[in-house]
Amino acid sequence: MKLQSAVICIGNELLIGRTLNSNLAFLGAGMAELGIPVAYSLTIRDDHDAIKKALDECWQRYDVVISTGGLGPTQDDITKAAIAEYFGKSMYFCEDVWEHIQRIFTRRDVAIPQSNRSQAMVPEDFSPLRNDRGTAPGLHYSRDGKHLFVLQGVPLEMRHMFEQHIKPIIKQAHHEAMGLVVCNLHTYGVAESSLVELLDPKELPAGVSLAWLPQTGRVDLRIYGEDAAAIAIAEKYLIRKVGDYVWGRDETLPAGYLLRLLKERGLSLAAAESCTGGLAQRFITDIPGASDVFLGGVVSYANRVKAELLGVDDSILDTFGAVSEECARAMVRGLQKLLKADVAFAITGIAGPDGATAEKPVGTVFFSWRINDNEYALRRLLTGDRESIRHKAAEMAILELANTLRDEY
Amino acid sequence: MKLQSAVICIGNELLIGRTLNSNLAFLGAGMAELGIPVAYSLTIRDDHDAIKKALDECWQRYDVVISTGGLGPTQDDITKAAIAEYFGKSMYFCEDVWEHIQRIFTRRDVAIPQSNRSQAMVPEDFSPLRNDRGTAPGLHYSRDGKHLFVLQGVPLEMRHMFEQHIKPIIKQAHHEAMGLVVCNLHTYGVAESSLVELLDPKELPAGVSLAWLPQTGRVDLRIYGEDAAAIAIAEKYLIRKVGDYVWGRDETLPAGYLLRLLKERGLSLAAAESCTGGLAQRFITDIPGASDVFLGGVVSYANRVKAELLGVDDSILDTFGAVSEECARAMVRGLQKLLKADVAFAITGIAGPDGATAEKPVGTVFFSWRINDNEYALRRLLTGDRESIRHKAAEMAILELANTLRDEY
Repeated sequence: MKLQSAVICIGNELLIGRTLNSNLAFLGAGMAELGIPVAYSLTIRDDHDAIKKALDECWQRYDVVISTGGLGPTQDDITKAAIAEYFGKSMYFCEDVWEHIQRIFTRRDVAIPQSNRSQAMVPEDFSPLRNDRGTAPGLHYSRDGKHLFVLQGVPLEMRHMFEQHIKPIIKQAHHEAMGLVVCNLHTYGVAESSLVELLDPKELPAGVSLAWLPQTGRVDLRIYGEDAAAIAIAEKYLIRKVGDYVWGRDETLPAGYLLRLLKERGLSLAAAESCTGGLAQRFITDIPGASDVFLGGVVSYANRVKAELLGVDDSILDTFGAVSEECARAMVRGLQKLLKADVAFAITGIAGPDGATAEKPVGTVFFSWRINDNEYALRRLLTGDRESIRHKAAEMAILELANTLRDEY
Repeated sequence: MKLQSAVICIGNELLIGRTLNSNLAFLGAGMAELGIPVAYSLTIRDDHDAIKKALDECWQRYDVVISTGGLGPTQDDITKAAIAEYFGKSMYFCEDVWEHIQRIFTRRDVAIPQSNRSQAMVPEDFSPLRNDRGTAPGLHYSRDGKHLFVLQGVPLEMRHMFEQHIKPIIKQAHHEAMGLVVCNLHTYGVAESSLVELLDPKELPAGVSLAWLPQTGRVDLRIYGEDAAAIAIAEKYLIRKVGDYVWGRDETLPAGYLLRLLKERGLSLAAAESCTGGLAQRFITDIPGASDVFLGGVVSYANRVKAELLGVDDSILDTFGAVSEECARAMVRGLQKLLKADVAFAITGIAGPDGATAEKPVGTVFFSWRINDNEYALRRLLTGDRESIRHKAAEMAILELANTLRDEY
């Protein structure tokens, strides 16, 4: 039978939008690796009844339950009392934990606040899990082959506890459990609904699951299962069916993919942006180490800047307009010369809500890119509002250029 | 009675790691702002029974229930069927939705895959919510004063649906019924903990609530209540206590504030960015109508671009380095001349993770701005990781320049 786990995230701050909860993603990946994937997760307040109710729901249905948060000096009593009450346990003062806490304060040369004594209280039959990154210990309870782990909410402490304690305990308890194998394929240039028609999940080997992860303007595919050989067969099936649209495998972002290709080829990069107004360059410089290949660029928002800085001829602007293939080509030529870049791209379009004409509706975008002396251009009609048109245009410029580099250089 | 909401996040990908769920944090902040805070959240698989069970749990206990995810053409049937079954509704084919989907595909000049027809199926008594960023509509159902919203999982689409549909529906249903008066004051340049010490909620008139809405690098204050006169008194109290830090009232974004001030004064704008790599210009061009005052700018990522394009003297780069007040001042001078702009700003700093020195740790950022012939400069040490340092630096450049314009021009 397939084992499953549940995660209970405790903390008011998670529910009022102050804190992005990275703990669930971390535990999801970690437990999938251990072969006991997370099937369910709750996010609740620091509240006695909410904690008891959540425990009841998860403990009945899942093999491993992990809670995060609710162990700070202020909420500590609530969480542990609720857990002890749910399992019908009394609390005892754990000398080992107290010594650990005392050592930490002595090292810091600080008197121990009395509120810390409560951190040494442990429900009966629970084992404290030593915390090398803070004072509050984690807790472990096991019954009928099930496990409960009570962890800290601070990501750095929680992750440490997971590596240090949960992994070895789970591995020992379920040594036969195999790791989940995951493969991510990133597509571009095809609608999710078209992918659906091209791919038939029934043709995947047994035990392999397929997940669709739609991004803005593109779709990621994820296949996962316990058998690496089956995953390899499934990957081959996907490549055979939709390989033309796949730009990466386990990549993170389009800009990271472009920068890797440029680095491998020893080419420098520059960008000229009109309607995207800096967004494509922002995507590029989001990646640490972008400076290895990215020189910089120009945001030529006004026509005057296109003409004076990038050398776009007034006749082009007058005859074809700023939103035209001719203008995109002139922008990228001027830019490449200006910054002496090996590779350059330019974007000009109408992000809306204003600026549309009969022939050029909102969403019309022209792209041009140059690799050394070879020049490319493309016209696309993008859908959505201003923000999503800009987002799609910036990523499209990056992906079209990257695919050209991959296929032709 | 205090209203509460619940969020159901649907998606296998959220539970197997690698996908960080930002939707809950967004909705947590958004619903807190609307006065119906999220008290509970579930993360579940794309699974019929799991969806029904989650709905049952939330619909019984909360006033507003929002689900995200499970609306792609692949999972669509599962989610909608489970919802329809839970509420005992049959499904109908909604012509309006189908027309919207057809329009999108026609504009893209692509044949409509048959799987898209299912996106036009809507449970009876549910209203489709038009989605300007994709094909799948959201859904709204209301009964006994309670509301269910079924939203997309893609953050850009989900956020758009929240702004476009949920906010007005909730405001009409609850705020107008409650006669809620809201006033937003935006602060900058002061830590949340300092604001807490400066403001005493006990000094606010009875019936007025104060909410702290921390943004990246700045804090918004919101006062709300049913009595407009009491809100006016509360606003005066806030201005008396922390008015020095307030840059706007009911503004949307710092870039909107800057553009308004420039437009009022008839001044044109240009930007030069190093460490922020286009992000500040992206913030500016996020605002429709930015082209009225924004000419464009330069991303001078490599030193060569700072020297050749902006005319930063090699001696400045050699003596003080690219991350220095001298370089920021030279950048803004060169840029203003290059683009013939009335107003210009420049940003250069160390966003990390690499590039730090003993005197200039990660987060060191230099700003310089010019208004006609007057020049200003500032050094700041920003905290956080690469992303938040870049975000704070870009907003800081915009807000410092805007405050100078407001106070001195």
